Amino acid sequence: MIPAAHDGGSPPLMEYERDPAAIYEASFRIIEAEADLARVPEEARPLAIRLIHACGMTDITADLAVSAGAVERGIAALRAGAAIFCDAEMVAHGIIRRHLPAGNDVICRLNDAGVAERATALRTTRSAAQVELWGDDLAGAVIAIGNAPTALFHLLERLRDGAPRPALILGFPVGFVGAAESKAALAGHSFGVPFVTLFGRRGGSALAAAAVNALSLMAKGAGA
Amino acid sequence: MIPAAHDGGSPPLMEYERDPAAIYEASFRIIEAEADLARVPEEARPLAIRLIHACGMTDITADLAVSAGAVERGIAALRAGAAIFCDAEMVAHGIIRRHLPAGNDVICRLNDAGVAERATALRTTRSAAQVELWGDDLAGAVIAIGNAPTALFHLLERLRDGAPRPALILGFPVGFVGAAESKAALAGHSFGVPFVTLFGRRGGSALAAAAVNALSLMAKGAGA
Repeated sequence: MIPAAHDGGSPPLMEYERDPAAIYEASFRIIEAEADLARVPEEARPLAIRLIHACGMTDITADLAVSAGAVERGIAALRAGAAIFCDAEMVAHGIIRRHLPAGNDVICRLNDAGVAERATALRTTRSAAQVELWGDDLAGAVIAIGNAPTALFHLLERLRDGAPRPALILGFPVGFVGAAESKAALAGHSFGVPFVTLFGRRGGSALAAAAVNALSLMAKGAGA
Repeated sequence: MIPAAHDGGSPPLMEYERDPAAIYEASFRIIEAEADLARVPEEARPLAIRLIHACGMTDITADLAVSAGAVERGIAALRAGAAIFCDAEMVAHGIIRRHLPAGNDVICRLNDAGVAERATALRTTRSAAQVELWGDDLAGAVIAIGNAPTALFHLLERLRDGAPRPALILGFPVGFVGAAESKAALAGHSFGVPFVTLFGRRGGSALAAAAVNALSLMAKGAGA
């Protein structure tokens, strides 16, 4: 920990960039200068840039995995009006509605009636239990998982058992127990579903939402 | 980028921890084993553990700054029913309502009527413009900034100009333009307001929300 400075002396002059467009532009310039984007396939670079922008870490390119065709598939699905299922309210609230190309529904069932009871019955988390509520609506949907490894694991179990195939899985569980493992499982066998994921412990709602936002902008032809 | 594995072969067996309590316990055990918590003042350790848990990165203890008395002040404010002002909807939606010790209000004004126009008039971001709407309600409030450097900078400007003092500032802007600078400004001169911050580019809504959740649990005497 860095010791906090004593609070004294004169108030600082604060010079900082206030213009939203200039902030974005400067951010993307820094990311392009510092990040190793060459290791990311060309069609996935706008996505990688948005992910880096969301977390402030340029080195995530080393852990990023994008399956062949995933970006194209995500763009097509969003353009076609695919619903977006999120494992956490934070993910849903990070998705910028005005960027969505087709007024797509953004759905989080975590707090639906009955989810807690279902979780208890299944001896799992509410995050995982809600996956059951996605049911046949999985077909053609975009799945954005930014919190719970158990949600991603349970989605994979449902796919193994024959559930309808989503268009794309954005797999960004975070943390110490199951996050790395669930993302390795996704990349190792996604049951034919294209995916984007970040190996290791890092992840989170901001990354899952940023992935959707990047694909939305690409779907609207707005680039990064 | 790690090449995605080909999708073939037999479906994997998935063995993973499903029990929410066991997941928390295992996570905290790993964090305590791996993180350098000794560098964090004792009263701030439950907070540091929750922050690490939220981002999956044990090394944030190196960049964490907690001003003297900040934890105590935050706990007291939450117990007294302090409102929590958030700069982003993602922060507000990451705050676990059932943990709040006094049914505290959680407020985000980013999408209030007039914020966009105010931002244009002030030639700044909507995130910063909303800070003006916090007005006299700043007094005694807990401020959770998890996204915009401009919001933190503008809050500091308001305090410099004599705005009422919040009880605590949780400063976690993220990114490449202004994030590190805004947090350095907070730590360098917070106008007498206790603070918690994470130096550098890292930060985000999940960390700001986790800080509130940690203080809520401490306020309820539930530890980490």
